[in-house]
This record gives sequence, structure tokens and C-alpha cells, in this order.
Amino acid sequence: MTNEIDINNPLVNILSPKSIAILGASNNPFKMGTMQFLNLLYSGFSGDIFPIHPEEKNVFGIKAYPSINSLPYAPDMAMLVVPPKLVVNMIDEFGKIGTRYAVIITAGFKETGEEGIKREQDLIETANKYGFRFLGPNCMGLINTRLPLNITATPVLGLPGNLSLASQSGTYIAQTTLYLQKNGIRLNKAVSVGNEANIDLTDCLEYFGNDIDTKAIGLYIECIRRPEKFLEVARKITKNKPIVAQYVGGTEAGSRAGSSHTGSMAGPDYIYNGLFEQAGVIRVNTIEEVYCIGNALALQPKLKGNRIGILTNSGGPGTAIASTLDSNGLEIPTFSENLQEKIKPLIAGYASSKNPVDLTFHVDMSVLTKSLPKAMIESDEIDGLIVHGIIDTGWAELAFPVFQKFFGVTLEKLRDNFKTDVSEFVKMPFINDKPVLVSSFFGLEDNAVVNFHEHGIPVFNSPEKAAFTMAKMYQYAQISNRPQISEEYQKRVIPENALKIMSKSSDTGMDEYLAKKILREYGINTCEETLATSLDEAINAAKVIGYPIVLKGCSPLINHKTEQGLVYLNITNNEDLKGAWESIEKKAGNIPRLVCRMVKGDRELIAGIVRTGTFPPCVMLGLGGIFAEALDDKTIRFAPLTEYDALSMLKSLKSNKIFESYRNMNPIDKKSISSLLISLGNISIDFPQIKEIDLNPIIIENGIPKVVDALFVL
Amino acid sequence: MTNEIDINNPLVNILSPKSIAILGASNNPFKMGTMQFLNLLYSGFSGDIFPIHPEEKNVFGIKAYPSINSLPYAPDMAMLVVPPKLVVNMIDEFGKIGTRYAVIITAGFKETGEEGIKREQDLIETANKYGFRFLGPNCMGLINTRLPLNITATPVLGLPGNLSLASQSGTYIAQTTLYLQKNGIRLNKAVSVGNEANIDLTDCLEYFGNDIDTKAIGLYIECIRRPEKFLEVARKITKNKPIVAQYVGGTEAGSRAGSSHTGSMAGPDYIYNGLFEQAGVIRVNTIEEVYCIGNALALQPKLKGNRIGILTNSGGPGTAIASTLDSNGLEIPTFSENLQEKIKPLIAGYASSKNPVDLTFHVDMSVLTKSLPKAMIESDEIDGLIVHGIIDTGWAELAFPVFQKFFGVTLEKLRDNFKTDVSEFVKMPFINDKPVLVSSFFGLEDNAVVNFHEHGIPVFNSPEKAAFTMAKMYQYAQISNRPQISEEYQKRVIPENALKIMSKSSDTGMDEYLAKKILREYGINTCEETLATSLDEAINAAKVIGYPIVLKGCSPLINHKTEQGLVYLNITNNEDLKGAWESIEKKAGNIPRLVCRMVKGDRELIAGIVRTGTFPPCVMLGLGGIFAEALDDKTIRFAPLTEYDALSMLKSLKSNKIFESYRNMNPIDKKSISSLLISLGNISIDFPQIKEIDLNPIIIENGIPKVVDALFVL
Repeated sequence: MTNEIDINNPLVNILSPKSIAILGASNNPFKMGTMQFLNLLYSGFSGDIFPIHPEEKNVFGIKAYPSINSLPYAPDMAMLVVPPKLVVNMIDEFGKIGTRYAVIITAGFKETGEEGIKREQDLIETANKYGFRFLGPNCMGLINTRLPLNITATPVLGLPGNLSLASQSGTYIAQTTLYLQKNGIRLNKAVSVGNEANIDLTDCLEYFGNDIDTKAIGLYIECIRRPEKFLEVARKITKNKPIVAQYVGGTEAGSRAGSSHTGSMAGPDYIYNGLFEQAGVIRVNTIEEVYCIGNALALQPKLKGNRIGILTNSGGPGTAIASTLDSNGLEIPTFSENLQEKIKPLIAGYASSKNPVDLTFHVDMSVLTKSLPKAMIESDEIDGLIVHGIIDTGWAELAFPVFQKFFGVTLEKLRDNFKTDVSEFVKMPFINDKPVLVSSFFGLEDNAVVNFHEHGIPVFNSPEKAAFTMAKMYQYAQISNRPQISEEYQKRVIPENALKIMSKSSDTGMDEYLAKKILREYGINTCEETLATSLDEAINAAKVIGYPIVLKGCSPLINHKTEQGLVYLNITNNEDLKGAWESIEKKAGNIPRLVCRMVKGDRELIAGIVRTGTFPPCVMLGLGGIFAEALDDKTIRFAPLTEYDALSMLKSLKSNKIFESYRNMNPIDKKSISSLLISLGNISIDFPQIKEIDLNPIIIENGIPKVVDALFVL
Repeated sequence: MTNEIDINNPLVNILSPKSIAILGASNNPFKMGTMQFLNLLYSGFSGDIFPIHPEEKNVFGIKAYPSINSLPYAPDMAMLVVPPKLVVNMIDEFGKIGTRYAVIITAGFKETGEEGIKREQDLIETANKYGFRFLGPNCMGLINTRLPLNITATPVLGLPGNLSLASQSGTYIAQTTLYLQKNGIRLNKAVSVGNEANIDLTDCLEYFGNDIDTKAIGLYIECIRRPEKFLEVARKITKNKPIVAQYVGGTEAGSRAGSSHTGSMAGPDYIYNGLFEQAGVIRVNTIEEVYCIGNALALQPKLKGNRIGILTNSGGPGTAIASTLDSNGLEIPTFSENLQEKIKPLIAGYASSKNPVDLTFHVDMSVLTKSLPKAMIESDEIDGLIVHGIIDTGWAELAFPVFQKFFGVTLEKLRDNFKTDVSEFVKMPFINDKPVLVSSFFGLEDNAVVNFHEHGIPVFNSPEKAAFTMAKMYQYAQISNRPQISEEYQKRVIPENALKIMSKSSDTGMDEYLAKKILREYGINTCEETLATSLDEAINAAKVIGYPIVLKGCSPLINHKTEQGLVYLNITNNEDLKGAWESIEKKAGNIPRLVCRMVKGDRELIAGIVRTGTFPPCVMLGLGGIFAEALDDKTIRFAPLTEYDALSMLKSLKSNKIFESYRNMNPIDKKSISSLLISLGNISIDFPQIKEIDLNPIIIENGIPKVVDALFVL
């Protein structure tokens, strides 16, 4: 992944135009278009701005033009905040004069029913005539704090940063800037994608991946429209840049609400979880987490290990941080005697130097901001640091009513009294290349908090959030350490016999015998078995395979053998075999029967292929046996799978422990299960005519997964 | 539960003293004691205040006394902010003059090692001489917004409320008042319990339970010192008042950090989860949740069902709320045609009236604050309402930089322009007796937020938090609907035969045969079995019981029969029985053997008794079989159990679905499993000499749980 922008990405121009024409701005300040125009002016955009208005001669001092045709030249970008019925024509006119990019704020398209769907289709076709690329419709604009450029309805507050956002909700781009400023969230670029009629979330991702000012990416997602491309793009990016995403379409209610919002079709949580895991995307549950965790990842050095130091002036927050870190898999190492000896002289005799280092109530802030964090972060015993309790002028704000009453001091004077020097502290993460997060119950009234924001130290308004963010930083460390994807895994030839069987099956249909033959062609272990068309053949087969055996009716027309009583397990002799043979005859007539070795194992898996919506084929792995439905323990990845993907599927199962050395059972053979999953993915790619594959059960016999039953749905 | 205060509860006097002596306050404003003294004055406490100081004649204008003995009368309460070595003597002196209550802020006791432990012991003994009750040591004081009284180091800001807090961290009582004010958290009373040498968290709970101004209780917990009493008290309270608790001692790191903080001994999460579930306490994971969820429960009407309406002016937040509610088990019903017809005229043609009701971007706030929420909350289709998007003067703050630049307006003037009337809105929850929660990205700069705070409408700074809080309100609705505890369940007699067997076992030891006999005396189903001392006896027993049988060596000295090869399963004839008999003889000599019916079932449970620390005996229920350790699916309740407790244990198992009608298996007989668990609890109470009971496995045979192996550790 280079840091060069792909010049074909439409956001190159849309986020950095040199000239903008705007329709919908006037001298009436209470119009949305006017607000966006004023924000554009206020943002300091240095290119040409052309308001177009049929009557106004100028808009807030900027010369206005009566029509698109009257513009002095074709602007790089058009911005439309006009009634929906005007949009298509305007795009056509811009197309004619040579403009090729637009941001369409106007709502009233796909999200509003039949008429809107037609209008959106017209819009797409008109744009396509010219190779026009546009954001929206039904979006809230975009922000580029580096150009600078802001065409949302609110001004950007605070300092530029390194977090870039793409959102299917305009609110999270255009109405939270005050909230972001108060919380020290520093944006680089932000895009509201609206209906994604032309430019979608994946385009944004691709752009951010190549943008050098973007150090972390935050996404609000109701639906991913091009999942295959999303996976390809995100997987490359996450090697070097973290992506934090909230997905709200996975529940029934979330999917329903999202559909009436942006007309999106969502997918179930387990599909999206698989997508995110495969892509290395960090999934979070709230927009606050998108902002705060994304911001911390954008601002701070990468966390390189899982050992965290905790420095606090209060036991409660320190303990809460320790507990949250621990339950998220991080370590809070007890410090060595050596390090403790360095710490002890800096703290009270009864205070703890072990980690958490707890100063207990302490008035002199310099210990908390200088000597102690320095000693801790410089040691090689921790990889990251969380500090709670630095208070600066916030204390003045808190105590002001009392000081005012008893001493008559002004707030300003009191604030002066409480100044704390954090200039050394704010450099520590960058000098030591280790992340430092701060927990504080104070906000912008506290000068230290303002300082932290300015210097890129993330501040969290509760101890647990700082700890949880550190845990997510560790999750990212593991994501970025994943093996690079080699292109090797896609270079294969389709096994010739598999092709033959498939082509034959188009006449005969696909029965279990043929399905398993194909599996074996792909190197997947099945039970040993023979197709018998007479009892004699069956008896011979049993002799070769060895008792105990299983006898099953085998026909492409019968999919639910067990339910129809066509499966006889654990047959130990010819006599019983004969009985079973005749029973099947009675129920299903003279169909062929499969004679299979009775595989005995201690654990079961299920696996398969599902095709859903616009997603690539999903390879599914789940816990089998009696607990399968009750625990609903399954995971998916999209074909084709890498070995890393396949192995991570096993790890993703909640019940993964039982597939390790467990209760004197052999661990499952990793090579076998991963090649089984990879092969399943390959089959789904090689034969798009297979709608579904269901391998259930796969019995683990001496550590080796053996497919005992297989169903291909064509 | 009456609303009368138990006059023996020491907090009656400590939270509402008529006179206070304070040691450690002076005219130096930078001393902790002085700050607390000034806050006491500032709080408006109307009783007598006696600063005691060896030199100062008065402290901030209040007459000071040179010694405890020179006080005009014995004050109701003493407050000590002095060096630790002075504390014991001072309590002694106060005891002598007749004072009986104290708050000891001073640290340097149990939490600091050996010397401190001794000092705390001295303190306890000295206090006990006089029947002295005290808070602390090592605490941060307390707040009673109703008296008013505040002796923490910071002033109380904002309005009094109905949430009462007790915390093992002083910070959460004494240093977050500004944070609480900004978030609209309105306190009633708050107590920092410190080392709990005399008054502990459970005392606070008992007091709050009876306090009419307390409508909800929030707890920060590192360790519960009197779990049995806590359970008794909390269980009564939660019927009428919600308790929200954060527990941070359940992880290794949390327990270690807590121990060096307040010298507490914590317990594992599963024990505390059982305690909280049995007591009806809502467990949360962050202090923010303690505050915000506690405050919402304190301020708003009870949620009576699970159907929630969502009103929003933006699809993203609405969808996120819907998704969070759904994944927490709440419903977002699609509105009836009838209700939608009422809503449609109020919104744009393309906006959704289904629920979420999404106005989409809308400038006129009156729809969002008046007609729409009224139509929704007055319908009988929802039990609670969440509203996102009401913006008042916050919009002015956000847009101010732009308006200032282009129109030269002042912030004040701009704020006036954006005023929104929420006076009707704030009454809706109380008129309709249904909770209303608000989600907003604005804070105190928004006049609507200030109004909401004043009128008891909880405001959350992200949509998901409002939704999660509503889910916790529903959890509380279920808790308060639990059956009342009758006293009946404790009235039992110990089965006479069980007494005999136990007394006999003190000579012989307790083997599996005797253990199961006791279980049967308590009505617990076991497999049918006979003790045999000769092969003939065994063969006869097998004949009576019926093959297949199990043969096991049976001796009080042998606890791990399976590991020692002394268990032979599925014996189907005399010949095999003889073989098994002889094999046991070879391995373990001529010990008695148990002949048991071979119980065949489809699912397994484990159950038992554990005794841990100061907790009452824990009855444990867990998933049995191959998955037991891998899934670590277990739950506990404390003996004695009610039927509700026992049934809730089964529901608490992650795998609980497989014990319902599942895959053509019978549902487990609820009566049998609940009586088994209740009886286990009774055994643990009747025979304290039993250290541990382990029933593993309990096989579910045709729905009936049968104990197949039992181990009693004496």
C-alpha cells in the first residue's frame, strides 16, 4: 500500500476542488444552502466560489451568476441544495459545460419510495452520460480540514487532526462538531455519503487508505453495498492504518430503521462480523467509540505489547482501569523491585508502587505529570500508560463557588493559582514511542485537558473508556501483525474430475455420493464409502470397509435422509445390514445405498457455503452436535480464504477450547481443518451453480475432521 | 419494606447531625480539612459547627475551640482530618464527652500495611468501648443535599435529586460533582465509605432503602464485606427501588489493585454475578453507567413493558437507538395504521411514521417537542420513548463563529433566536407515567438540556447510551416484578435419617453410597443403586436393578474413582460384571462396590456446594458433559434458595436453551431441578461440616435430572 492517491478516485477532486459552484445559497441566512455556503466561506476555502441564483446579484458579497450557463468557466465541483425535481437537469447542464464532480445535498430520492427511486435512477443515468461522479443525494456534505474546505451546515471547531470519517448518517459528520471539539476529537476529513448513488463508503475507504494525513479511519455503517470490494480495500488498509466501524444493521429493528433512512439492505450480524474480522476492521458498538477510539489510534504511537502501566491519584479509578484492562486481555504487570525502588521515593510511604501506582490524594501535581510517568514509561516493563487524576484549572472551576464566597476571588485569579505544567508530559508518548491515554472527569474548563487536546493526548471522561480504548489499540496491534496476503492463494486449477462430476450431475442431479467425491477431489477428508446398488454389493463393500458401517439411501431427490428414516447407524454384521437394506427399500424403493465406515469421534463441527445478497460466497464454520443450535456458535469468512482466515475461523468460535487438547482428546489437526475451509471456498468460486453446501456433521476422529454427511444444493 | 428509617442505623445521625465538631480545619485554605470545612459552611448546614484548633481563635469567622474538652456540649458528630496517629485518642476523648458518631477522613490505616492494621484495630476497639459509630477511616466524607450537608473537599453543584450513592472510592463522591452537574446527575445523598472499619456499604444500602428521598441507589464496589447481610438487605430493597452497581474486584488485576486501595479481599465475577442476580442488583461496567442509569431510574417513571418508541430528526441516531434496543431485548413496534395516520400530518411526506419516527432534517423544533412526542407517548402502543435531535441554544453555540463573522451578532442575541419551548415536553413522562429519555450531542450550552436537567429528563450524550439505559430500566421492571420472598422457605426440619447418616459418617467417613443416601433423604433423584460386598450380592443387585449396570469401587478414601480406573460403565451381563468385579479387586483390594443402574440421557448438568470466604454457602449449577470446562457455563446462588432463585439459575446458563424442548428431547422437569437446587442449599445449611459437594454428572433422563455421581468433602 503506497501513500499515493489513486487519481481515479473521485474523492481526490471532491475533497480538494479548486472551484465550486453552489445552487441553493441566497442572502436568507435561515436556508440550509445559505448555511452551507457561509460555512464554506468561513472554512477559509481559497478557490473560486460561484453562487448561482436567478435573482440575487451577489450572495454575502460574492458575485452570483443567474444560471449554470453563465458561469465564467466550468467549476471543478457543483454543490446542489435545491428541490429534488431540479437536480437531474442541473447535473445535465453541468455535464454539458464540462464539470465532472458534484455533492448533492438534496433529499427526496431512493429513500422516499417509488417516485424517488425513479428520480435517483434518472440521476445516475444522466451522470453516467458524462462520467460525472457525485456524492449523495440525501447527504450532508463533507469536511477537509487540511485544504481547508467545509460544506456542511455547521462550522468545524477545534484543531485539524488525523482521524477521517465516512458515515451513512449526515448527523455524525455535520452536527457533532461542537461535541467533537469538547472531546478533543480532531478530524482530518469527513464525508457524509447519503444514498451512495455514485460514490459509496468503499470509495471513501479507498481514498482514506491512500491519504497521508489520515492515520485512522472511522465508519458509521447501516449497510455495505459492495462487500467484496470493501473486503479487498479494507484488508489492505488495515495492515497499516486502523479502521474502526459501527454497524447498526445487524438486528431486525436496526435493519428496518436503516432501510427507511437510506434505503439500505442490511445483513445479519454474523455476516458482518465475519467481514470485519477478515478485513481487520475493529467493530465497536457506539458512535462515541468510533470517534474516541478512532481519534486515539490516529493520534498516539502504536501499542506494541499488552503490558500497561496505570498511574492514578485515586484507588477507585485505578482499580476500574485495571479491571477493564484485565477483562479485555491486557496485562497489568507488577513492577520489578528495581522499578519500584525508582518509584517509591516519589510517592508517600503508604502509597502503592506496584502497578497501579497510586499516589493517593496528592496536591502537588508535578509528581503525576513529570517524575512518575517518566519513570514508568521509560522502563521496559510496560508498552503503554494510562494516567488518571491530572487536574489543572478544572479544580478552580469546581471549587470556585466556595472560593468566591469566602475569599471573593475571581474565577480567572483562581484558575491562575491552579496552573499545572504538562509540557513534559505531552511529549512522553512520542519520545518513548508508546501510547499514553488520560482519564479525567474534567472538560475544557481544565487547562490540562485543553493542553492534552492540543498535543494529541486523548482524554476520556471515564476511567473505563481509557482502558477499553487501550484494549482496542492492542487489538489493532494484532491486526497489523497479521501475515501479508500473498497473491499465491488464488492461483489454482479446477480439479478435472470435479469438473466431470459437476457436468454429469447436470443430468443426474447431485447426490451425497457425488458431493463427497467432489470434496475428495479438493483434498477434503470424508468417511470411506462405496455406492451399492444391490445387497451383495453392499455386503462386499462392508467387508472391504470393515464393520461397523452406516447404510444410507442415496438419491439426488432426497435431501433429508435422517428425517425420512433412511440412515442406519452402527451396523455391525451382515444380518443387520440385510435388515437395514430392506427397510430402506420399503421406504424409498430401490434407490442406490451408500455403505460408509462408521466414523467415531468425540467432537463435531459443521461447515458449509452460503450465498447471500451481494456478498461473495460465505464459508461457514460452526460447532456441531447437540449444542449447535442452542449455542449458535458459528462464524463466516468470504471466499477465497487465506490460511490465516481459515485458522482465525476456528479461533472465532466461542467453543474453540474444545478443539484444542481438551480432556485427553487430541487437538484438531490445524492443517486439515484449514485446508478443508479453504477448499470449500474454492469450490464455491469454481462452481457458482452450487447455491449452498452443508457438511453436517464433520466428525473429529483422532484429531482429523472427517465429513460424514454432505449436501450440495444446485 | 416501609419508608421508616431504622433508628439504629448509624447513618441516620451521620447524614443528618445537628452539630459537628471538626478537627483539621484552619485558616490555611490549602489544607484538605479547611476545604472540607468551607464546603460544610457553603453547603448551608444549619446546625452548630465547632472547629477545634490549638491556636486559632476562630476559623473563617466561626469561633474555634482549643480542645475537645473545651466544647460547650458534646456534638452529634465529630469529623477528623488529622494525622493518623492522633485519631484513636481523639475518638476516645469524644467518647468520654458523649459524642457517638464520627467521620474519619484520615488515611494511613489498614490500607498501608502492618502498623496501619494495628492502628485500625485500636480504633475499632476504642470506638466499641463507647458504642461509637464512624465512617472511614480513609474516606472522603459525605453529602446530603436535602439537609443540606456537604463535608467533602468539593462543593455540590446543580440541583438535589433522588439518586443516592455509596462508594468504596472517595473520588466518585468527592471529585466528580462538576462532571455530575454537567451531565444532569442529581444526587440525593452520597457516602464515601473508605476502609469500612465500622460502617460499611451494606449499612448505607439499608439506610438508602428506607430513605424516602432515595429513589435509586448507585454503588461502586471493590469488595462486599458482609455478603449475607448485603443479600438480605438488597433483595428487599430491589422490590421497590433499583440498585445499580459496578463491581471491579472480579478480575485478577482488579482484585490486586483493590487490595492495595482499601485492603479489600474481592471474589471472582461469577460469585458476585450470582449475588447480584439473587439480590436483584443491576450490574454495570462503568462508573458512568452507575451515575447515568441510576439517575434515570431515580428521576423517571418506571418502564412497564418492553415496547419503545423512537423519535428522531436524523436517521443515524434513530437507527443506532433501534439497533441497541433490539440487541438488548426491547421491542420497537411498527405503529398501527391508526397511529401512523395521526403522525403523518405532522411530518414531511417522505419521512417515516412507522417507528422510528424520523422527521429527517427539520428546522421547526416544535414538532419534535410538542405534537409528535405527545401523539406517540399518549398511544397505548409504547411503554417508553427516546427522543433524539431536540436542539435549542446549542445550535447558536455551534454556529456562532459563522454568524459572528457574517452578521456581527453576539452569542447572547443568537441564543435568543434559537430558543425552543420544552415546557410541555418535560411534563409528558409524568403525565403519562412512562419514561422519556433524551439523546443529544449538546451540553449545558443548550438551553433545552438545562431545562431537561431541571425537570428530571435524563439526557445522554450518545444515542446508544439512551437506548442501553432504557434496556436497564426494563431489566429493573422485571426485577421489581419478581415474587416476594416468603419466610416459608426457611421453615424445615432436618430429615432424621440424614442426621443419622452424617453422625455415622464421622466414624466411617463419607463415601458415595452414603452421600447419595443423604441426597435421597432430601428428595433428590439419584440412580438406583445397591452396595455390594461380594460378587454374589452384586449379581443379585444387578438382577433387581436390571442390566445394563455400572460397577464402581466405593470407599470414603477414594475420591477420584474414574481416574483410578474403578468405574465400569454399561455392563450388560453377569460375565462382564464378574470381570469388572475382579479388576476393581486387583486395583483397590476388597473394597465395597456400588451396583448402579446405567442412566442414559441426552444432556448433563453439574451441581454442587462451594464455600468461599465470608459468603454464605454457594449452590452451583453448571453445564455438564464434554463442554463443561470449555464453555465455563455456571452460575451460583446463596443458600437458602427460593424456588424463583433456583429457576433463575437454569435461565442464567448460557446453554439454557438445550434444557428446553430441544431437538425432540423433553424439556427438563422444572420442579425436579428447582427442588434439587433448593435441597442442595438446605443440606449446606443443615450440615456446616460439609465443605463441598460435587454432583457430577447429573444426567437428564426423560427430562428428570438424576444424580449419577456424588462427592461430599467433609
